[in-house]
Amino acid sequence: MAGTVFFSVTMSLDGFMAPEAVPAEDAFSPEKQDDPGVRRWNSKWSQLQAWVFPLRWFRENLKLGEGGEEGLDNDTVRATFERTGASVMGKRMFDLGERAWPEEAPFHTPVFVVTHEKRDPWERPGGTTFHFVNDGIESALDRAREAAGDRDVRIAGGGETIQEYLDAGLVEEFSVALAPVLFGTGVRLFDRVDPDRLTLTQFRSEASTRVTHLTYKVGQR
Amino acid sequence: MAGTVFFSVTMSLDGFMAPEAVPAEDAFSPEKQDDPGVRRWNSKWSQLQAWVFPLRWFRENLKLGEGGEEGLDNDTVRATFERTGASVMGKRMFDLGERAWPEEAPFHTPVFVVTHEKRDPWERPGGTTFHFVNDGIESALDRAREAAGDRDVRIAGGGETIQEYLDAGLVEEFSVALAPVLFGTGVRLFDRVDPDRLTLTQFRSEASTRVTHLTYKVGQR
Repeated sequence: MAGTVFFSVTMSLDGFMAPEAVPAEDAFSPEKQDDPGVRRWNSKWSQLQAWVFPLRWFRENLKLGEGGEEGLDNDTVRATFERTGASVMGKRMFDLGERAWPEEAPFHTPVFVVTHEKRDPWERPGGTTFHFVNDGIESALDRAREAAGDRDVRIAGGGETIQEYLDAGLVEEFSVALAPVLFGTGVRLFDRVDPDRLTLTQFRSEASTRVTHLTYKVGQR
Repeated sequence: MAGTVFFSVTMSLDGFMAPEAVPAEDAFSPEKQDDPGVRRWNSKWSQLQAWVFPLRWFRENLKLGEGGEEGLDNDTVRATFERTGASVMGKRMFDLGERAWPEEAPFHTPVFVVTHEKRDPWERPGGTTFHFVNDGIESALDRAREAAGDRDVRIAGGGETIQEYLDAGLVEEFSVALAPVLFGTGVRLFDRVDPDRLTLTQFRSEASTRVTHLTYKVGQR
C-alpha cells in the first residue's frame, strides 16, 4: 500500500508560514545578526516555532540534551516524524539547512531536493541522504514515494515548494499547527494556490495550551 | 462589572472573513444575481458560512422554522448571542443588512452604527434598536458598553470596522470559526492591523466536524 503525500507546518493565525525571506548567506552569518531584516526574521521565526523548542522530541532529535516537555504537542511532532519514509524539499530550504543542521541532519530518511544543481548524493550520519533531483517536482515525488515504501512522503518545505505541490494537486493531506501570532508580512502558506481547484475536509483538530493542530484532507475539483 | 469587548467571525483557512466586496445595491438586487462578481460573492459567502445554516439556533433566530442541528456549533452561536448586550457595526454592514435582515432584525439588543449619516434611532420589532453614531469608533463603543450593562459588547462587523477596533487596541477577546475553505482573495481579517502591537493567547479551541472554534485573548505590547 502506497503512503500518503502530506506536509506539516506551523502557520500564524493570519496565514503565514515564514517571515519575509532573507538571503541564506545572511541568515546564519554572525556579522549579519544585527541587520534589521535578519533580526526580524529571527524574532518572527522564534515566535512562530516557540511551541516546538521545549519539546522532548525536538531536543532528542537535535541532540540538545535530556528532558523536555511531553504531551499532545510532543506526540504530534513525533508522529509526524515517524510516519515519514522520505521527504522532498526545495533548494532554498536545503541551502538554509545545509548551514543550520547539525552534522546528523534531523531527517533520518532519504530527502529529495528539487534543484538545478547537479550533485552526487550527500550521505549524512544517522540515516539522512540528500538526493538532488533536476527534472522537476513530479520526478522528485516519484522517487520519494519509491524510497518511502509504505510510509508517507512529507513535502518538507519551504513555502514555494509546498505551494507548487499543493497547486499541482499532488498533496493528499496536510497539517497546520496554528500559532497565536500575527505576522502581517511574510510567506503566506496558500499564496499561488488556486483556491477553486481544491476542496478541504477538516479531518482532525486538537489543541494544546499553545497551538491548535489541524489536519485537512485535500480533494480536487 | 463591565463586560468584555469581543468579535466573533468565521474565517477561511487562508485568513479571509469575507469575499471581495460588491456594491451593497448589487448584492441583493434580483437582476444582478447573474453578475459574475455577485455570483462569486454569494458562492464564497455560502461556503464560508455553510456550517451555520443548518443550526437550530440560526433557524430559530431568523424564524426559518422548527428543527435544525444541535451540538457544539449550535451551542457556540447561541452562547455568542446570549453574552451580547449591545453590538457595534460599520455603515457598510448596516447598509447590506438593512436590505437583507427580516423585519425582526436578528440582534435583539441595541446596535450602534458608526456612520456619518445623521438619523434618528430605528426601532425594530423584537428588541433591536439601531443608533447612529457620528463621532467615531470610541464613542460608539462607549455607548455600547453603557447599553450592555454587565453583558458583553460585540463588534459585529464588517471587516474594516473589526480591523479598526482591533488596531486601536479596543478588542479584548475574539473568536474565529475556522472553516476548511480557501478564498485566495477577499477581505483579510487581520489586514490593516499592526501585528507588533498585539499579543494573542489561545484561550479556547474546540472542533466540531465542520469547523474549529478558536478564542484568543488580546494583549497590548
